Amino acid sequence: MAQRLASRGRDFSAWYNEIVQKAELADYSPVRGCMVIRPYGYELWEAVKGGLDRRFKETGHENAYFPLFIPMSFLERESEHVEGFSPQLAVVTHGGGKTLEEPLVVRPTSETIIGHMYAQWVQSYRDLPILINQWANVVRWELRTRLFLRTMEFLWQEGHTVHATYEEAEEETLNILGQYADFAANDAAIPVVVGRKSEAEKFPGALFSYSIEAMMGDKRALQAGTSHNLGQNFAKAFEVSYLDQNNEMQYCWGTSWGVSTRMVGAIIMVHGDDQGLRLPPVVAPIQVVIVPIHRGEEERRVVAESVTSLAAELKDSGVRVHIDDRAEYTPGWKFNDWEMRGVPLRLEVGPREVAGGQVASARRDAARKSGKKPLLRRGVVSEVKQLLSEIQQSLHDQALAFRDSHIHEPADYEEFKEIVQDGWAYAWWCGNPECEASIQEETKATSRNIPLDQEAGEEKCIHCGEKAVERAYFARAY
Amino acid sequence: MAQRLASRGRDFSAWYNEIVQKAELADYSPVRGCMVIRPYGYELWEAVKGGLDRRFKETGHENAYFPLFIPMSFLERESEHVEGFSPQLAVVTHGGGKTLEEPLVVRPTSETIIGHMYAQWVQSYRDLPILINQWANVVRWELRTRLFLRTMEFLWQEGHTVHATYEEAEEETLNILGQYADFAANDAAIPVVVGRKSEAEKFPGALFSYSIEAMMGDKRALQAGTSHNLGQNFAKAFEVSYLDQNNEMQYCWGTSWGVSTRMVGAIIMVHGDDQGLRLPPVVAPIQVVIVPIHRGEEERRVVAESVTSLAAELKDSGVRVHIDDRAEYTPGWKFNDWEMRGVPLRLEVGPREVAGGQVASARRDAARKSGKKPLLRRGVVSEVKQLLSEIQQSLHDQALAFRDSHIHEPADYEEFKEIVQDGWAYAWWCGNPECEASIQEETKATSRNIPLDQEAGEEKCIHCGEKAVERAYFARAY
Repeated sequence: MAQRLASRGRDFSAWYNEIVQKAELADYSPVRGCMVIRPYGYELWEAVKGGLDRRFKETGHENAYFPLFIPMSFLERESEHVEGFSPQLAVVTHGGGKTLEEPLVVRPTSETIIGHMYAQWVQSYRDLPILINQWANVVRWELRTRLFLRTMEFLWQEGHTVHATYEEAEEETLNILGQYADFAANDAAIPVVVGRKSEAEKFPGALFSYSIEAMMGDKRALQAGTSHNLGQNFAKAFEVSYLDQNNEMQYCWGTSWGVSTRMVGAIIMVHGDDQGLRLPPVVAPIQVVIVPIHRGEEERRVVAESVTSLAAELKDSGVRVHIDDRAEYTPGWKFNDWEMRGVPLRLEVGPREVAGGQVASARRDAARKSGKKPLLRRGVVSEVKQLLSEIQQSLHDQALAFRDSHIHEPADYEEFKEIVQDGWAYAWWCGNPECEASIQEETKATSRNIPLDQEAGEEKCIHCGEKAVERAYFARAY
Repeated sequence: MAQRLASRGRDFSAWYNEIVQKAELADYSPVRGCMVIRPYGYELWEAVKGGLDRRFKETGHENAYFPLFIPMSFLERESEHVEGFSPQLAVVTHGGGKTLEEPLVVRPTSETIIGHMYAQWVQSYRDLPILINQWANVVRWELRTRLFLRTMEFLWQEGHTVHATYEEAEEETLNILGQYADFAANDAAIPVVVGRKSEAEKFPGALFSYSIEAMMGDKRALQAGTSHNLGQNFAKAFEVSYLDQNNEMQYCWGTSWGVSTRMVGAIIMVHGDDQGLRLPPVVAPIQVVIVPIHRGEEERRVVAESVTSLAAELKDSGVRVHIDDRAEYTPGWKFNDWEMRGVPLRLEVGPREVAGGQVASARRDAARKSGKKPLLRRGVVSEVKQLLSEIQQSLHDQALAFRDSHIHEPADYEEFKEIVQDGWAYAWWCGNPECEASIQEETKATSRNIPLDQEAGEEKCIHCGEKAVERAYFARAY
């Protein structure tokens, strides 16, 4: 069969690459490291965008757009920032047939150029806060790329805010982190751990970075969103200052935060199975597919009529529904095809269903037999909505159970090393970057984040034995 | 007063630059020729996007995303295309710290890279048509730039479709042109003329180009959207071919079409007046602004209560409403400020209105006195919706009347020259590119387009006197 996929259990990486292409989510591009996002994958991204954008606007943020090109000199004004990004830059040296006087960098992120603009827009405390988000493409020169997860060009949103005080900036940073976690859990059905990044893993130029981290189907971690408290670093580099109530000059406090097309990769890797994708209804481009079943013209006509009215009813009540009436494929072939594409709910309508006032249904989140159920045609809309809501919850709960059964608390470093080969370790840790570097060298695992809500304590670091006051998640990561 | 603007009649260009900045629609960027789209301008662009995107989806198109970078060699495969775009290219020569083997062009438009992908996706007639649109940024190196109208980087949508036959491609090209005209008239309240571009003005690589053209407030023309029938030019260059029902290889027929952030410039230039912007309600970020009027704490409390419930009612019924309760400004200052920002309808609520069960209203589209009217508080929502719909229509009708009164049919070339100094000429024309070049040299006017629906005839060319079978609009253009 054309749809046969690599086994997810045996070769997760091969399974991922195959499903992304077979489900027509994305394709490789002729430019090394760039990807083409195909319509089905882009619709998934539009759902991610919609869910995040709504949350940003509800919390007082506005969208804007800043230039793609950044003068090289801008990056150099913040020393950690340029050090972090310079190996990854794409540089425009020619424009309009001439050599440029100053090379332009294709933005890897926009703190610098936005800082430059904020310096002009902010004069007084009355101008604060500025709460702006940008939906944009960015470029980071990557050597090892993978569709959605790590590509040279990717799509994302980057929020950039400035505030009068440290406290307000920190509150904003954590508020956004909460929005990200809420989106992940409720829209993408992905439970995440929320915490602070280690010194080694934080954003170049930030005071503190925070992240949401999710466990993929192969138990590796994926950083699915980050939120940074930038302190006054960029404000000082770009002279973003304001006159306070006492008419004294103060530097602003900044934040920045982002979620990218990586989130689409997370949805694939968290929920998929050997049959293909399993998409959470809230973000699924198609929530319900209807497969008509018939032999001969008379049956075709009767079934088509029933299916048309069924689809119209569902559409009117806001369900994203698709009728698969392709003549060249059998129903069995279509079942496999839509399972592979991860459509949450399939409805089947044949002459028997029409005659009996029923619709056959099959849930994508459950094993083949247990997910099947005949529905009464009368009242089918509310039943379908109920099922979609159950599927959304069930995908979340399956992911949560899977994750929690693969997080362990190691008693010693030997156990730690074993755990991170096939799961996450939650361990006391000294926080020392050198200690983290040794752990990574010895186990390939890095600290993912340091949870905000954890019991206080004082123990010894799992690796070096020095004093430890916090615990962190450690895992091999994408 | 801070809001005083340049006179639109005396210096349209100064007026435009000032209003764009004062209304905080856009700002100049530190990179020459690039612009920063500020939140108010971006919301206007989001409304343009929303109106177009809905129309594309309703007519069977899907969104996707293709890479920002295009190998230089791709552009060279279509000879007219590379000739047209090579003076305008931004070129990346360095990536990840190394010199690239093949320079990458920052996309000026995406026919070539999309053609390359379509060659892989299309095998059989069953794969056709492909109807894809992309929302993206593009870069064209421009020497003389102007916010929204002509910038080095701009945002746009570019549709790219492939079909089995010439007829289908031509139908798609014209269907999209109709969608553009419909959007312009009904959403942006801008009447447009619809027609074919001349040989000199068509897209490099197209068989035929079509456009919508609008008259700005200074009577110059603006090309506000284009739709191209690409014939088989790109299909041949990129080997986009399919096996037809007879199992014979055929090249596909392509189209491409785009509308950009220019449309925001058109909205400003068509509807604005000496007081500032006048935004059509369908695309206005804020449709209704409420200004509370009060003296002393007791009045403030009573008015605030009334205003809060009024805003909530309007919001619930889908009206985009904003309360301006800034304490540091007087009502008069606010009136001017919101007039400058083009909000279609202002409501004023003071103690007298609260006591009388009324709300004062002022329309932005009408002269100050004639646009004022007290509304009954009871039933105010449907009254406001009615007023918004009237304002939408009135802005369209004003623009239409203005345009039509400045289009003239010249009897001879002397009259033609006079007309295009302060309007558009609709004239019989031979269609010869050399003739068009002379006209441009002598008058600065170019052919805008050749209307599709025009009476047949055979006359003499307004310029050279040779045989003419069609009439074209001529104007000085942005």
